[in-house]
Amino acid sequence: MEKKEMLYEGKAKRVYSTAEQDQVIVEYKDDATAFNGEKKGQILEKGRLNAKISTIFFELLEENGIPTHLVKELTETEVLVKKLDIILVEVVVRNIATGSLAERLGLEEGVELNQPVLEFYYKDDQLGDPLINRYHIYAQQLATAEEIAEVEELALKINQILSGFLAERGIDLIDFKLEFGKDKNDQIYLADEISPDTCRFWDSETKKKLDKDRFRRNLGEVEAAYHEILERISG
Amino acid sequence: MEKKEMLYEGKAKRVYSTAEQDQVIVEYKDDATAFNGEKKGQILEKGRLNAKISTIFFELLEENGIPTHLVKELTETEVLVKKLDIILVEVVVRNIATGSLAERLGLEEGVELNQPVLEFYYKDDQLGDPLINRYHIYAQQLATAEEIAEVEELALKINQILSGFLAERGIDLIDFKLEFGKDKNDQIYLADEISPDTCRFWDSETKKKLDKDRFRRNLGEVEAAYHEILERISG
Repeated sequence: MEKKEMLYEGKAKRVYSTAEQDQVIVEYKDDATAFNGEKKGQILEKGRLNAKISTIFFELLEENGIPTHLVKELTETEVLVKKLDIILVEVVVRNIATGSLAERLGLEEGVELNQPVLEFYYKDDQLGDPLINRYHIYAQQLATAEEIAEVEELALKINQILSGFLAERGIDLIDFKLEFGKDKNDQIYLADEISPDTCRFWDSETKKKLDKDRFRRNLGEVEAAYHEILERISG
Repeated sequence: MEKKEMLYEGKAKRVYSTAEQDQVIVEYKDDATAFNGEKKGQILEKGRLNAKISTIFFELLEENGIPTHLVKELTETEVLVKKLDIILVEVVVRNIATGSLAERLGLEEGVELNQPVLEFYYKDDQLGDPLINRYHIYAQQLATAEEIAEVEELALKINQILSGFLAERGIDLIDFKLEFGKDKNDQIYLADEISPDTCRFWDSETKKKLDKDRFRRNLGEVEAAYHEILERISG
């Protein structure tokens, strides 16, 4: 399968059309951004590492009954996926309070939540990806009530699958961001990626951060963290 | 019924205990604040006007099957109400986009929403009353799922009742904020007040603002707007 026209270039990925109308190629880049694009940089080999890490997670989820966009790996940085209409709602699931949640609720960083917290964000860079609720989603016609209910159920199930898998590998899944899309029959699939760019991973023992927070907060050993995640979830 | 100890002084009201353990007296003040207390002032006769306006709305809601804290009017500025444990979630219902909603979703001020938008805010001045969702409410144990479902249903029903009543009086109900509380048997009642302090009212024809936005945005004719609302909803 070969890349044809570039359809879209995002902060961390490029998307290309293929000879198949309902499949596209996602190419992962080494570029890293944070704070809605205000902080920019590169993380050596991030493209390759995230392509691999995300593929491992998507295969795990498929095995556990979650419909995903994954078709197959093509090269070290390229993955063939279903072409979807992306729902413009980012879904965040949190197990431990940190980042914007700790701020919003006045909680200390690292406090365990008594149950997972799910949040919707409007996927709109210009608005700064604001927190929204179901009523905002309906008012903006971003998704129907049925679609949002399905997305919510899938996201909580994904949290269970990933949390268990990672716990066995000494990693706490703190929180993560998901995106979903619909095919031409309105079937919903998990889209985008699951990687240290889109999740917070902490070492279960030392609580060392093994994700993009190392880049965001200039903590150093950024590449090493991505390598560490790939190593622990491989094989 | 006489005021005994002052239990609480808020920005716009004082609450006093009474000889009855499960009843308190609410005294409405002329003090006005905005932007989480940053802007301060007085609105002449606001205490009297809001006590009256709120009582008219609460009686209307009671007649339409909404349980409210209202017991009876005592004086021009004092109302006897059920003593409740206030649920620390402010419920906002919006019919027209304005204020923080217009900003959040990138909508123009005054755009009619295709269906009412309901929002929950964490009643916490220190945190600046942030927008929250049901999961945040459960995580902070502010209310149970059953309580929130009931509050949501009541708020949408209240919107229907008030919108219809006001439309007949040439007033558009743009949006409003509600608070709810529980008695010692965990029965839920509408609490707080419904007034130009807590609602946005626009004249249906001229779209002139007839609420606290006149104070917030220094539009002048503040007292006149409160008088106008009372006049239109009276008798």
